[in-house]
Amino acid sequence: MKSEFSRILIYGLGMMGASLSLALRKKNSSAEIVGVVGSPTSKEKGIRLKSADQLFTAEEFLRSPDWESYDLIVFGVPVNTTVEVIQKLPSGFKGLLTDMGSTKLEIVQAVESVLTGEHRYISSHPMCGSEESGLEFGNADLYENRLCILTKPKGATNEAYAQIEGFWKFLGMSTTEIPAQDHDRILSYVSHVPHLISSLMTNWVWENGCVREFTEKSPLPLTGGGFRDMTRIAGSNPKMWSPIFGSNQEEIYKALIDYKERLDLLIAELKPEKPLDLGQWESFMEKSRKDRDAILKKQNDSKNP
Amino acid sequence: MKSEFSRILIYGLGMMGASLSLALRKKNSSAEIVGVVGSPTSKEKGIRLKSADQLFTAEEFLRSPDWESYDLIVFGVPVNTTVEVIQKLPSGFKGLLTDMGSTKLEIVQAVESVLTGEHRYISSHPMCGSEESGLEFGNADLYENRLCILTKPKGATNEAYAQIEGFWKFLGMSTTEIPAQDHDRILSYVSHVPHLISSLMTNWVWENGCVREFTEKSPLPLTGGGFRDMTRIAGSNPKMWSPIFGSNQEEIYKALIDYKERLDLLIAELKPEKPLDLGQWESFMEKSRKDRDAILKKQNDSKNP
Repeated sequence: MKSEFSRILIYGLGMMGASLSLALRKKNSSAEIVGVVGSPTSKEKGIRLKSADQLFTAEEFLRSPDWESYDLIVFGVPVNTTVEVIQKLPSGFKGLLTDMGSTKLEIVQAVESVLTGEHRYISSHPMCGSEESGLEFGNADLYENRLCILTKPKGATNEAYAQIEGFWKFLGMSTTEIPAQDHDRILSYVSHVPHLISSLMTNWVWENGCVREFTEKSPLPLTGGGFRDMTRIAGSNPKMWSPIFGSNQEEIYKALIDYKERLDLLIAELKPEKPLDLGQWESFMEKSRKDRDAILKKQNDSKNP
Repeated sequence: MKSEFSRILIYGLGMMGASLSLALRKKNSSAEIVGVVGSPTSKEKGIRLKSADQLFTAEEFLRSPDWESYDLIVFGVPVNTTVEVIQKLPSGFKGLLTDMGSTKLEIVQAVESVLTGEHRYISSHPMCGSEESGLEFGNADLYENRLCILTKPKGATNEAYAQIEGFWKFLGMSTTEIPAQDHDRILSYVSHVPHLISSLMTNWVWENGCVREFTEKSPLPLTGGGFRDMTRIAGSNPKMWSPIFGSNQEEIYKALIDYKERLDLLIAELKPEKPLDLGQWESFMEKSRKDRDAILKKQNDSKNP
């Protein structure tokens, strides 16, 4: 498989963008890679680390943007910045564009309002985040064997879809198409709300006086591996996550309401007045294990990894 | 350090009990170890695997129990069975006793009602569970460097406390003392409710039509590592966990109510009518990370393991 592009702009050369540049090199893409970074410091760092063939700060680039000179433009900036940059595109722009945004509705709405008529913008969400940010954390293998969700705004051509899909496949990804609103709903369930719950759990545990008193007295933590696993994502890079929450507030809210209604049912079953029906709890847990296997697309009922 | 016991009864030679037996051997204890198992099949397995020096089924043992011939008795059976066996002890029994139960209040109440006056029963909770059950999963290193919570029923002597503490330390554990009710409250926060939440999350995600539809269409799962981590304990051995929920129902209920009240506040903050205050969300997440470090007794703010 070969990449068909000769000049690629990665607008936003953070961890994801720098990884993209390194991955293209590793796959022997012959494309010239131009990177845009946020600050002069990052530019120096990028030059030193050879993160791209050519580097500009956003300020330098936007002074006289040569959008037309690239045969592929990838936005590697956060969702809100992506929306701002889309609004700076020349009207009627026909270049091939994509992004790596964590939520889709705001981006797709911006695309549909700026690029009216037929265009070549396909939104992407490579599912391979990391808690690290900054181009120094670029990793040539980040995209390998991971999933990339593709979202087609109104007016995007099928040819553009095939080209963007081919680009991610060239980097070793599998792809699947999900419309913007469905994407944002799904991500609220499988990622955004779990982050909130994980954070909530650490507050709830630590603010319990009893846990706190005996944790302080104990030579070792009072928790087991389960709690450790469940709170691993608590307090994940707040600068990265709070804008994600902001850009998907409505879906997160709805998903949390659904979660809370289920929690209410669980609490009602646990009312101390009536003793637990142990058989019913066993079924609840059996179902949970099967549901998890289905979510993780596991073929069998074997032990969790 | 040496173990001072010459004849130890492990009543309940499942994963934990068999590990105890193996750990004692590994530490060169000279004690004779007698194990009690639930079924003839387990007895055969235990003989084949040399899980103890001598093995009885519970039926055989209880036909003419020689409680007095042991200088240490460890119950390795579930909490409800532990309570039943305590009720079979000779009245005024003065032997040294402990258990490895996951909840404490029911056990301590049974001890206090059966062993009136001065006695030598100290309840233990070695914090080193595993999802495996059965003596074939015995692991000589299970207790090494882990925490053992000790609980003193009314009437237990300080000497007995020192002996049981010494026993666990001989096996490489650290110890801390926590009263029964505090223990059960703490465990509801750091273990029991997290298990319920993890199970609840898989149901909630998989019963969302959108997640289900696009998971089925996608070549790879739509989840990231966060969700995988948070649901690792979902559906943990239901036969083991549903009795734990049953024996700590009241504390679990109270902990869930506390959790739910915090969730309600979070949901109120997310109401779509008003846009998120991103700074406030950053502070929420920063606090979560600090709380987690405190719970896990980490010295610094470094990245999560």
